[in-house]
Amino acid sequence: MHLIRFGVSLPDQLIKRFDRLIRRKKYPNRSEAIRDLIRKELVAEEIENDGEVVGVLTLLYNHHQRELQDHLGQLQHAQHERILSTTHVHLDHDNCLEVVLLKGQAKQIKQMADELIALKGIKQGQLYRTSTGKDLS
Amino acid sequence: MHLIRFGVSLPDQLIKRFDRLIRRKKYPNRSEAIRDLIRKELVAEEIENDGEVVGVLTLLYNHHQRELQDHLGQLQHAQHERILSTTHVHLDHDNCLEVVLLKGQAKQIKQMADELIALKGIKQGQLYRTSTGKDLS
Amino acid sequence: MHLIRFGVSLPDQLIKRFDRLIRRKKYPNRSEAIRDLIRKELVAEEIENDGEVVGVLTLLYNHHQRELQDHLGQLQHAQHERILSTTHVHLDHDNCLEVVLLKGQAKQIKQMADELIALKGIKQGQLYRTSTGKDLS
Amino acid sequence: MHLIRFGVSLPDQLIKRFDRLIRRKKYPNRSEAIRDLIRKELVAEEIENDGEVVGVLTLLYNHHQRELQDHLGQLQHAQHERILSTTHVHLDHDNCLEVVLLKGQAKQIKQMADELIALKGIKQGQLYRTSTGKDLS
Repeated sequence: MHLIRFGVSLPDQLIKRFDRLIRRKKYPNRSEAIRDLIRKELVAEEIENDGEVVGVLTLLYNHHQRELQDHLGQLQHAQHERILSTTHVHLDHDNCLEVVLLKGQAKQIKQMADELIALKGIKQGQLYRTSTGKDLS
Repeated sequence: MHLIRFGVSLPDQLIKRFDRLIRRKKYPNRSEAIRDLIRKELVAEEIENDGEVVGVLTLLYNHHQRELQDHLGQLQHAQHERILSTTHVHLDHDNCLEVVLLKGQAKQIKQMADELIALKGIKQGQLYRTSTGKDLS
Repeated sequence: MHLIRFGVSLPDQLIKRFDRLIRRKKYPNRSEAIRDLIRKELVAEEIENDGEVVGVLTLLYNHHQRELQDHLGQLQHAQHERILSTTHVHLDHDNCLEVVLLKGQAKQIKQMADELIALKGIKQGQLYRTSTGKDLS
Repeated sequence: MHLIRFGVSLPDQLIKRFDRLIRRKKYPNRSEAIRDLIRKELVAEEIENDGEVVGVLTLLYNHHQRELQDHLGQLQHAQHERILSTTHVHLDHDNCLEVVLLKGQAKQIKQMADELIALKGIKQGQLYRTSTGKDLS
């Protein structure tokens, strides 16, 4: 990885406010903060263009619904080649959170997540998609 | 407005992808694109901190519902000191779009928009909040 | 427009919390609130499928930059068949807000908005896309 | 959990489009789809009101940056009482994904995530917050 340095011009008021934001978020320097903003923009584009992405699917449900866990298991097995890992956390006596990490084309991942979220008994489901990191130095 | 110039370091691959994005979006140069990313971040913070904001409220409805227009008018008059302007566009025989520009504290604006969106007959309502521009050079 | 009535089952705790939310947002009844949630979901899908949409483009800028206003005018004229209206509001001595209403395919509208937002001198630009209302009763 | 049944009125065109959406997303019935829309709305409110939430923090980074892993470890240990679990996945030779599950007040979780995302070497970080499930039947 080769670093390239170039100059950026900012109005003084803008840079003052940006520096305050950077301190609050504890960035080590301006370059790192700007890199983050740029990468966020690039990832948003990747997803819009249906590139290969990593999906983080969060499912919140009541684990007393035994049938649900069977369904969850079946659906995941049917598409196991797209699943990287599954993490299960017990939030309290009733609720648990399952985080399923997926990899595939942006739209396929979306379709698969939609089906899991639609299962009866899932209280809350949310898919977040990000880059696979390959072209994101 | 005084411009300050400073150096930023980016991995070469990242800068290549960023330059492609900049060309597609037709930015005149990197500085302008980076300023935009920074300002977007600052505005997001302003809204979270309940600062004074400008609100753009979009309401889509069927104008044959005369009662709705009366209600819309009444609610807007009651809060006229927060309304900058209202623009009305006829989309087709049935549908029209009303864009209400608001100014006030972020949460007040949200509350006011919620009430307008909840009116019976509004098909779609959406509030977008942005900076008043005062501290955003 | 013909109304169809059907039954929905909700856990009692969920309905209690939903009713509180409805009161806060001042919805006249549950049906209206549920219609809004459904329409929001449908509009999100329309945009993803690149259907015909209405775009609300908000541009915040310092009107002392005379060149910017020329550029804004030229770009808008070049695509006038997609512009429904333009509203201009003076926020203070320096800042003004321009709201451009657009109509066209979801992606074309995005591309056009990207170019306007990228103009030097625009402090903040944001595109919000919604339904044309045609198939949204 | 006690189910309450009530009637909802929808325009026939709207219900037709909703039913198509439901089929595509594979919901078992309308009630389940409507419950999901309602819960999504309630969770959004919980977060705005700084309630106790579960956070899913996704960090994408190049694992060759050994220093980064040390920093990640230290920061996580310092706040271990808020961390439910950490899952690590190797995406390819260079990239890995770490998913950190957090629990705490909405704003504290955000502050903690900001610090982790700001670490030098993190390519992409994203926090998603959801309900703890407690009052969400």
